[in-house]
Amino acid sequence: MVSKARTVTLLTDFGTRDHYVASMKGVLLAIDPELHIVDITHEVPKFDIRRAALLLANSARFFPHGTIHVAVVDPGVGTSRRSIIIKTKNYYFVGPDNGVLSVAAAGDGVKHVYQIREDGSYVLQRRSSTFAGRDVFAPVAAHIAKGVPLEMLGEVIKSFKRIRISEPKRFGNRIDGEVLLMDAFGNIVTNIGDELIEDLEPGQRILVNVGGKLLRVPFLKTYGDVERGKPLALVGSTGLLEIGLNQGSISCLLRNVKEGSRVSIQYSRE
Amino acid sequence: MVSKARTVTLLTDFGTRDHYVASMKGVLLAIDPELHIVDITHEVPKFDIRRAALLLANSARFFPHGTIHVAVVDPGVGTSRRSIIIKTKNYYFVGPDNGVLSVAAAGDGVKHVYQIREDGSYVLQRRSSTFAGRDVFAPVAAHIAKGVPLEMLGEVIKSFKRIRISEPKRFGNRIDGEVLLMDAFGNIVTNIGDELIEDLEPGQRILVNVGGKLLRVPFLKTYGDVERGKPLALVGSTGLLEIGLNQGSISCLLRNVKEGSRVSIQYSRE
Amino acid sequence: MVSKARTVTLLTDFGTRDHYVASMKGVLLAIDPELHIVDITHEVPKFDIRRAALLLANSARFFPHGTIHVAVVDPGVGTSRRSIIIKTKNYYFVGPDNGVLSVAAAGDGVKHVYQIREDGSYVLQRRSSTFAGRDVFAPVAAHIAKGVPLEMLGEVIKSFKRIRISEPKRFGNRIDGEVLLMDAFGNIVTNIGDELIEDLEPGQRILVNVGGKLLRVPFLKTYGDVERGKPLALVGSTGLLEIGLNQGSISCLLRNVKEGSRVSIQYSRE
Repeated sequence: MVSKARTVTLLTDFGTRDHYVASMKGVLLAIDPELHIVDITHEVPKFDIRRAALLLANSARFFPHGTIHVAVVDPGVGTSRRSIIIKTKNYYFVGPDNGVLSVAAAGDGVKHVYQIREDGSYVLQRRSSTFAGRDVFAPVAAHIAKGVPLEMLGEVIKSFKRIRISEPKRFGNRIDGEVLLMDAFGNIVTNIGDELIEDLEPGQRILVNVGGKLLRVPFLKTYGDVERGKPLALVGSTGLLEIGLNQGSISCLLRNVKEGSRVSIQYSRE
Repeated sequence: MVSKARTVTLLTDFGTRDHYVASMKGVLLAIDPELHIVDITHEVPKFDIRRAALLLANSARFFPHGTIHVAVVDPGVGTSRRSIIIKTKNYYFVGPDNGVLSVAAAGDGVKHVYQIREDGSYVLQRRSSTFAGRDVFAPVAAHIAKGVPLEMLGEVIKSFKRIRISEPKRFGNRIDGEVLLMDAFGNIVTNIGDELIEDLEPGQRILVNVGGKLLRVPFLKTYGDVERGKPLALVGSTGLLEIGLNQGSISCLLRNVKEGSRVSIQYSRE
Repeated sequence: MVSKARTVTLLTDFGTRDHYVASMKGVLLAIDPELHIVDITHEVPKFDIRRAALLLANSARFFPHGTIHVAVVDPGVGTSRRSIIIKTKNYYFVGPDNGVLSVAAAGDGVKHVYQIREDGSYVLQRRSSTFAGRDVFAPVAAHIAKGVPLEMLGEVIKSFKRIRISEPKRFGNRIDGEVLLMDAFGNIVTNIGDELIEDLEPGQRILVNVGGKLLRVPFLKTYGDVERGKPLALVGSTGLLEIGLNQGSISCLLRNVKEGSRVSIQYSRE
């Protein structure tokens, strides 16, 4: 599936109202004008490494093999934190060594890790202390796309920083997990995978304890299986249990639920 | 005007802060890495099929012939609502059969309509119940771009769901219409086309009744024809009568006007 | 660095919730389907020519030589304001003659200026009075990309409108300047260039007077050099002195500072 038209994705917390993202794209295209650049998102809440790591993990795997994924949520820019490339089974991941690449890279299967040489000839010659996205990560990504061997771009290192996502645990009728993501529709996505709830039947009611509230909701296939504005639980598009309202936002009703909040569900198992 | 570089446009209500749009782009590029993907917008208010249909109609026709337009505002995802392809004179439209494609498709001239086979080999093999954009519409669009015949992707059907946009009506000196769109500048675009007001002279005053307010405004060529902050009426860039302020937002002054609100205008005809 | 894959950048105040930006992209691709289109931003505050001009200047220079930069912040659309092309040393700039192109063009070195013929065969044949971005600037940019000589697109003119950015001034220990930009992180970027503060040592304290407040902050290399939430001054990624908080927004603390506000700094010089 690798093609001549190499794809680079960008994921940052820069927003799109300033010139920052465009500067990165300029640097990328100046090195390789044939690149296809795709934005994953630039609306990660500032410095929210965890959310960025999860969004990257949810989308990176759909891209063509050989895609170079650049993620820059980088509160430690200019300090001693390392700049890294992770070569996985199918992709390249480029960014700061603060965990932002770790979930997606681990999911695809890590092959090699490199610490980028930040004074080499494959980064911008006039570098700032505060914008590694433009000065280091964009040029390195473009050079990977052009076929520069990774050994020229950095030194092999043994490990990289990982962020911890807790695993859900089952206790009899109960599963304890956490809120992984809350999306723009207001759906609450948990870390409870479909393989953990294989015995749950469509139509069955489950008890959800989240944000200090107790909800009894039906487990169904899709939002439209309940009336507009009614709550339900379902297995969402990433294979995880989520709680939502048909054509409404359950997050607006559960104001004190946050990404990372504890969630537990209970249901009877025949 | 058809070229090898096939364009796919995307229009959704997903927003851009989650991984959803990027996942669709990944799927598209994994099937055809040479695609040009253009965002129409992802900021349609959630589930607002009418607004999405109008934005698609306003922009689709400017794209190169052969462009594949994918629109996903899909409150019925996973239910019995059909997934369709509409082949028109110059374009392909792909999305749910809920009216979102209907205005643009009708405007270009419908040739054939297909119901997508959602269990075929041209959709993702591991499909969710809640994300047809990624699992069905993106892969179908990419396969159209690669030249797969539409007959392989779906069954010919006779009709598709249309949304109703009311027609303006003239009663002597008065024209009754509706507010079609309100844009980010705060301009109020009506459904009153320029052909209906051909007898209106630049400089003439018209009486506008909208949102329970009565305004007397000059009919002019462009915003800059009045002082900053002053109201006017003009024929906007889609050939429709609109009401606005020079460098200001008339929507902010007319708080209870909404898309779909009734509007009527009056002017003297010599 | 010029390649067959010609890049066109777009910078507007249109936002992305309407069909306006997409219509421009459609027009561009209908003329040249091989174009690479890159958004600089569409979130310039409505009619803020100064901010648009500065964002263009900060990002344009990173793009491949030959890139065509289109900037449309155009309160005078449809009036007698001219539409222009500025050919600079490395780029083409296309937009209204209201100063929006002037900072970036001057920075790259102006070669020739053309007034676009708005009734010629290189603009849309059916033109509105209110959307030059779609009807004039997009088709002109696409024709430049296709190699149409600039002489075919417009008449050579001698001058173009420039916006004024004041120069900082030194008075002994004090430098008086202005706030150039405030970014989405809340950083306050001044017009005081690094060459003016070459004698300032990392770690030294400076006194900043801005928005009626007096701050004493350390001058350092990067945000992470202070504790989270603490203020500092540094030379930012455009080579200019900026004031910020580590992982926080200093703009939120200095509510009455605006882009264009006066700023002055003081520090002891051994």
